Amino acid sequence: MFQHVKQLQFNARVSQPDPRFATLMLEQFGGENGELKAAMQYFTQAFAARRPYPDKYDLLMDIATEEFSHLEIVGATITMLLDGVNGELKDAVQANPVAQFSGSSKAAKEDLIHAALLHPRFLAQTGGTPGVTNSQGVPWTAAYINANGDLSADLRSDIAAESRAKLVYEYLMKFTDDPHVRETLGFLMTREIAHFKMFAAALETIQPNFPPGVLQGDPRYTHAYFNMSNGADVRGPWNEGQGPWGAGESWNYIEHPHEHVMETAGEVEAKPEGTKHSVQEIAKKDKELSRARSQEVKSGSSKGVQQWSDYAH
Amino acid sequence: MFQHVKQLQFNARVSQPDPRFATLMLEQFGGENGELKAAMQYFTQAFAARRPYPDKYDLLMDIATEEFSHLEIVGATITMLLDGVNGELKDAVQANPVAQFSGSSKAAKEDLIHAALLHPRFLAQTGGTPGVTNSQGVPWTAAYINANGDLSADLRSDIAAESRAKLVYEYLMKFTDDPHVRETLGFLMTREIAHFKMFAAALETIQPNFPPGVLQGDPRYTHAYFNMSNGADVRGPWNEGQGPWGAGESWNYIEHPHEHVMETAGEVEAKPEGTKHSVQEIAKKDKELSRARSQEVKSGSSKGVQQWSDYAH
Amino acid sequence: MFQHVKQLQFNARVSQPDPRFATLMLEQFGGENGELKAAMQYFTQAFAARRPYPDKYDLLMDIATEEFSHLEIVGATITMLLDGVNGELKDAVQANPVAQFSGSSKAAKEDLIHAALLHPRFLAQTGGTPGVTNSQGVPWTAAYINANGDLSADLRSDIAAESRAKLVYEYLMKFTDDPHVRETLGFLMTREIAHFKMFAAALETIQPNFPPGVLQGDPRYTHAYFNMSNGADVRGPWNEGQGPWGAGESWNYIEHPHEHVMETAGEVEAKPEGTKHSVQEIAKKDKELSRARSQEVKSGSSKGVQQWSDYAH
Amino acid sequence: MFQHVKQLQFNARVSQPDPRFATLMLEQFGGENGELKAAMQYFTQAFAARRPYPDKYDLLMDIATEEFSHLEIVGATITMLLDGVNGELKDAVQANPVAQFSGSSKAAKEDLIHAALLHPRFLAQTGGTPGVTNSQGVPWTAAYINANGDLSADLRSDIAAESRAKLVYEYLMKFTDDPHVRETLGFLMTREIAHFKMFAAALETIQPNFPPGVLQGDPRYTHAYFNMSNGADVRGPWNEGQGPWGAGESWNYIEHPHEHVMETAGEVEAKPEGTKHSVQEIAKKDKELSRARSQEVKSGSSKGVQQWSDYAH
Amino acid sequence: MFQHVKQLQFNARVSQPDPRFATLMLEQFGGENGELKAAMQYFTQAFAARRPYPDKYDLLMDIATEEFSHLEIVGATITMLLDGVNGELKDAVQANPVAQFSGSSKAAKEDLIHAALLHPRFLAQTGGTPGVTNSQGVPWTAAYINANGDLSADLRSDIAAESRAKLVYEYLMKFTDDPHVRETLGFLMTREIAHFKMFAAALETIQPNFPPGVLQGDPRYTHAYFNMSNGADVRGPWNEGQGPWGAGESWNYIEHPHEHVMETAGEVEAKPEGTKHSVQEIAKKDKELSRARSQEVKSGSSKGVQQWSDYAH
Amino acid sequence: MFQHVKQLQFNARVSQPDPRFATLMLEQFGGENGELKAAMQYFTQAFAARRPYPDKYDLLMDIATEEFSHLEIVGATITMLLDGVNGELKDAVQANPVAQFSGSSKAAKEDLIHAALLHPRFLAQTGGTPGVTNSQGVPWTAAYINANGDLSADLRSDIAAESRAKLVYEYLMKFTDDPHVRETLGFLMTREIAHFKMFAAALETIQPNFPPGVLQGDPRYTHAYFNMSNGADVRGPWNEGQGPWGAGESWNYIEHPHEHVMETAGEVEAKPEGTKHSVQEIAKKDKELSRARSQEVKSGSSKGVQQWSDYAH
Repeated sequence: MFQHVKQLQFNARVSQPDPRFATLMLEQFGGENGELKAAMQYFTQAFAARRPYPDKYDLLMDIATEEFSHLEIVGATITMLLDGVNGELKDAVQANPVAQFSGSSKAAKEDLIHAALLHPRFLAQTGGTPGVTNSQGVPWTAAYINANGDLSADLRSDIAAESRAKLVYEYLMKFTDDPHVRETLGFLMTREIAHFKMFAAALETIQPNFPPGVLQGDPRYTHAYFNMSNGADVRGPWNEGQGPWGAGESWNYIEHPHEHVMETAGEVEAKPEGTKHSVQEIAKKDKELSRARSQEVKSGSSKGVQQWSDYAH
Repeated sequence: MFQHVKQLQFNARVSQPDPRFATLMLEQFGGENGELKAAMQYFTQAFAARRPYPDKYDLLMDIATEEFSHLEIVGATITMLLDGVNGELKDAVQANPVAQFSGSSKAAKEDLIHAALLHPRFLAQTGGTPGVTNSQGVPWTAAYINANGDLSADLRSDIAAESRAKLVYEYLMKFTDDPHVRETLGFLMTREIAHFKMFAAALETIQPNFPPGVLQGDPRYTHAYFNMSNGADVRGPWNEGQGPWGAGESWNYIEHPHEHVMETAGEVEAKPEGTKHSVQEIAKKDKELSRARSQEVKSGSSKGVQQWSDYAH
Repeated sequence: MFQHVKQLQFNARVSQPDPRFATLMLEQFGGENGELKAAMQYFTQAFAARRPYPDKYDLLMDIATEEFSHLEIVGATITMLLDGVNGELKDAVQANPVAQFSGSSKAAKEDLIHAALLHPRFLAQTGGTPGVTNSQGVPWTAAYINANGDLSADLRSDIAAESRAKLVYEYLMKFTDDPHVRETLGFLMTREIAHFKMFAAALETIQPNFPPGVLQGDPRYTHAYFNMSNGADVRGPWNEGQGPWGAGESWNYIEHPHEHVMETAGEVEAKPEGTKHSVQEIAKKDKELSRARSQEVKSGSSKGVQQWSDYAH
Repeated sequence: MFQHVKQLQFNARVSQPDPRFATLMLEQFGGENGELKAAMQYFTQAFAARRPYPDKYDLLMDIATEEFSHLEIVGATITMLLDGVNGELKDAVQANPVAQFSGSSKAAKEDLIHAALLHPRFLAQTGGTPGVTNSQGVPWTAAYINANGDLSADLRSDIAAESRAKLVYEYLMKFTDDPHVRETLGFLMTREIAHFKMFAAALETIQPNFPPGVLQGDPRYTHAYFNMSNGADVRGPWNEGQGPWGAGESWNYIEHPHEHVMETAGEVEAKPEGTKHSVQEIAKKDKELSRARSQEVKSGSSKGVQQWSDYAH
Repeated sequence: MFQHVKQLQFNARVSQPDPRFATLMLEQFGGENGELKAAMQYFTQAFAARRPYPDKYDLLMDIATEEFSHLEIVGATITMLLDGVNGELKDAVQANPVAQFSGSSKAAKEDLIHAALLHPRFLAQTGGTPGVTNSQGVPWTAAYINANGDLSADLRSDIAAESRAKLVYEYLMKFTDDPHVRETLGFLMTREIAHFKMFAAALETIQPNFPPGVLQGDPRYTHAYFNMSNGADVRGPWNEGQGPWGAGESWNYIEHPHEHVMETAGEVEAKPEGTKHSVQEIAKKDKELSRARSQEVKSGSSKGVQQWSDYAH
Repeated sequence: MFQHVKQLQFNARVSQPDPRFATLMLEQFGGENGELKAAMQYFTQAFAARRPYPDKYDLLMDIATEEFSHLEIVGATITMLLDGVNGELKDAVQANPVAQFSGSSKAAKEDLIHAALLHPRFLAQTGGTPGVTNSQGVPWTAAYINANGDLSADLRSDIAAESRAKLVYEYLMKFTDDPHVRETLGFLMTREIAHFKMFAAALETIQPNFPPGVLQGDPRYTHAYFNMSNGADVRGPWNEGQGPWGAGESWNYIEHPHEHVMETAGEVEAKPEGTKHSVQEIAKKDKELSRARSQEVKSGSSKGVQQWSDYAH
């Protein structure tokens, strides 16, 4: 269960209202790489880990909970940046002081509400408070979440998610010089870096963790690089020489894919190149890892009635 | 900030796996009236209330936090109902024991994975764990959330939300006879009833709370009922006599809307009927309430640097 | 079936084009609390009511039809507010009179098209006419609709929907001083108030209507308030004393939820508090209401061939 | 404004409940080519036509209104096909007669609710009544609508929409042998054919109607066919000879696009081929049509206060 | 398989950055009638055509491939129009040179980033590069695609799609006077015209192609025009006389639909009007065409192992 | 530009139709981790890389093009697995041979169409051909795409994307024993592994690549681990000791976050712990990297007219 502490994890402050920056900051409230996405991703992944991998469960729930706390910080900051809009809207009879900006050039530019027009739902739906959308009003969707029931993939999704979230904070910092807001953004950005390191460390404790999941790749296709575009081809460690492979292995650069496909009857007759692993070796590895991993997960199951929590004193 | 307690708020248990019911239960995990919707709705509404209405803020955050805790209960139950699917998927080399159900009538019907085929993403994406979707795999969207910066509307949205969530639990209970699962559903359903009562009580403390928002209605149109359909018209307190109006007021039943519209030049020349409130009286009320409400909200604003939380000891 | 009358239900007029306000007004055309949402919600709910509750069916269809008529008023107003844009776009060879605003500060601000740039789909897709989106271009989605096959929930969803729609019109009126547009907004806003009253009156005729649906709550959990957040807790009729409960009943304030959960083995061993209803009493009520409600609904079914309408003269 | 007539436009009947077919039929209620899509598409297009093209406005509103009437027929049929589900759900205490199908092979297959499990939202959200989704529960979205402010494009979108809707009814008829339902489907399918003819006839009255919109194409590129794929190329009237072009015109088949692009410096230096229209001729046409079309549309605008409807007697 | 050629199909150039036009141009990158929609629509339709209609398959894949190439041109143009934004964002420590525009009127209007604020995701997510959204940031969705497994409908969807895409380019050209960008837009617009002609020519080779699909309409309803709206009704070839029908056929104008529906017992007792086709004749046609079309399609199937491509030399 | 080669990159074959597996396989056609997502992600990322990082551009376009080729393989396989459905639908008059399964238990289970009922859009919309949806019919959305204008984040998104795609193929292989289909799945799965390696190798060539983006983290917060949940806390390299940090660095485990937050006035007064990097050092690094990275990107810009491709011979 969750509990709420009234104090924010970080002392969020703003120097003055700034509806435009509030709009931009929605990216981290209801945007694709924002705090809700992060919180819900780790929270959802945690269910699969609960029984077989209690250490990862603890990690995922700690970070998920911190991300919910960050979501609150972001929402609080947006609310303060919009300060005044809601109160203004409540003065419903006032002879529309802002009417002039609709279709007129004489708008007082410093008008809070004028600035907020870049996010019109602030004015006409949310009443000057945060909505669960990105900076353009696109509602948050669970399509942003990656949770696939396997920590060797999930943790990589999390490392990538933290990378993107960090980058978004970095971008956001370019658009405000409010020292208080920058301080908050700096804290939040830094926490994404810390989480990245945590997820990377946790991934390292899973061995083997490559390839993700259980099965090895077919040695006929693991080391092939298909040069799918013409001219100005560039060679580098991603398609040349040993690259990131082990000793004795190397990339197999297929310069003319169409010819190759024709010659190998649609790759069916291709032969392993660049790798020393045999099909037999790989089949054996597949079998071993299958047994080991399914064993691990099944060991978390219990016969008969299952109970999630223990309430013994 | 939030904190996580490892014990669920309710002792969720399941007697045996049941992927079909797990599928149905997704409605309350990632569905339109599920726990995530409730949690995010109250959490989002709370930001506007934080300063001017700290009592409602406390209420909204208490219930939001409880709904996040319920989301966890639902996710835990789904995970237990799917027990075995994830482990089975990890046994990646096994000669596809479930192949027979693809295109064959000989499928062992009790097969967990067969039953799970009604929610194919369990098999091909989430790895037998909950996804943030409804029972048909539609990703959760913030389009489900109603938060409009005014408690006289927000609390009514919350009463309606609790009504729907209660109903969904009632429907769900028809589809399982697992006594443990029914116990959990009973707890969750009951809490929606409790929340309904809390929101209703809170709404009562806001006076006046009708009409929602600040402005009164135009007396020419508040009491009119347009009979927009032919024949078999039914009369009742919603279009006849005093109905829900105050003493001396009554519905103005417009039997032939088209004629009425033509006669009143598109309602512009309509006269107040059924109400004793004059336009002047209403303009006065509008002004008073505008002043009062905007005052209330603005009183929550502060000049200069704003700070959300207080960390004084 | 429906029929269309060429005259609008209200004499919508505009004093002059105002693309910015047209953008805002899209909220009530294709937005989450707009007229299409209302129309489709009541229309969809009506199917379940058709046979067992013909009085509510008549009400729902009358209001649904009026909301479709309001949708038309909103679309007509937006079209008039955008007057000139479509014609301008048809002059396709003209040496782009508005080019200057793209990347230049010399834009004539009063230019219609310039103002319309806040809703770029007006320019590049809809050709200066309304689109079925909200003010930010988010396409209308049926995720906005609440229709759950039970009038005790549906009518509450409708009261809440009318509350929000009323509020949105109130917000919108702040952003135009065109007296004709304000008159139209005033009419539409007032009708939401009238519909609110109709739905509330209809809900009153359903007895009992609390809890929504059929089942009573478990007396161990109906009256409990979980204090899920720390410090600065506020007490009020929603968590203290008798609150909204009947005589002899009261809230059961659980100050320390985690301790309570541990002590009651995850609430399983909790005892009813604050209520005088026994489990037996409630089981009896459940049975009675189940019988009554299912009877009501089933009485609307007929054996053999079913026919929706009667065409007898 | 709209008015509702209680009788359906077609005498919809069903012989017996059939939840599976109800599920399929949702495609025409809330699906991408269903009646709501058609109704809203024509309704939305009508706004642009209202002033300059009152004849097309009348046509669009007539058909839009008929499509709303068809939406009602489809919803009524689905409701009758689901007859019994809602009543069953109201019997909330019954010892879950359908529990057996969740995880058990002993399910009574004829059970209505069992069959409905293919559309689980029927059971857990809509209470056995239609939802505004397609057959898989995807909520209807305005992304389905095509309305672009130009009749030469809009009417083609409508012809295509009718083609698809007709096809969907044809597909649906394969999946029911209920003679009453087939009769209804036959009526609805036939009306799509009739609408197709109406839209085609209306398009013919707009001259010129090709190319859609105002501008002619650049003669260097109008008649070119780029052969973007290798081998087994097929020649036909779409890339060979005169094809659909006027006398003296013909396709310019570019067999080797990459070479052509390199030789023409990225098509910039390409010469008109296959067409006798000169650049000058086309510029002249562009100017003429621009003037004519913008004139037409602007003629629908009025100076000063605009009013949508006329209420004079 | 696909191959990429580094040169664009058209020599896309821009004279200077213009973030506002980049925003508008997103309509053709990730918008509802943009290049991705076209490419994916034809690509998806092609699968059904592959075996039975290899000539149409070739056409669909040629045009799909060209549309992917156009998508690339649009993306390249947007990237060049945003030139400078990404580089500016990388200068992460710079004392936010653009801070002034947040809440201040003193913004340097020519600032690239200021102009980009109309599409805030450029700043906070995509880093000044194209995103797969429309001009308002709505993510592209496959709901835009029409592919229904029947060329007589699919090709009409394609003609309509090309019409809309052409129109959007025409609209876009009004908003830039950059001669290079206009040149690119002109090329892309013209290609939509060329594709329109190709699809129309291909449709002509399918006989009969009306009605779309296989079944004829019911002669009682094919020729009826329901006058669903009051007053100011307009008559034209879409509801009067022979219209687009064959010799000896004509429209059956139903002036008073409600009366007609009542008199025909919900159209069930209507008689064919305006057509000379008898029910028998139509049943025979249905049978013949069913046989012919299913034969055609089935002839593309093979017994035993199926293989998509042939790799023989 | 793109070119299409009629032969698939892999010789996709199927032994016999299997609509159920076709349904599952949609995950890799229009699902969240499918081939379209991968293709569009790399294609979109490539635009930002085009000028400053031509080597990464070449890599991204090669892999994007291969993913489009894989999308084609997946679509071809689904089409073959559905063989027969389209042809059956064309036989439109046949006395609905499948009617029996709608509401009847006597369905011939091996019926192709029966099996396809799990994906009803196959029957009622796509005509037995692939749709651009996932296995549950959810339309593909660009919300799945991660492209953020910075290779240090983008390549991590790509590694994660490949991890998930690999896992999905692994899951899918459990559900078919068709040796030809398994062969195709094996090829596609292996290619994801190969792409993973390519992206990882490319990421390595960017130095420094941690933290992603430009800015370093604030040393007060980079090394802190907030223990946000009670009891049963697990320690590991992600929150204990040196973990993944450099020599002399270590995690700062905050056991009681609420107390810590109160004591540090909302973290504002926290001190760096566990790190030896000073604020000055970091500010210096920030400045250097800002200069370097913005320089790199800006070097790709050119003054005056920009041109994407070079057509010189």
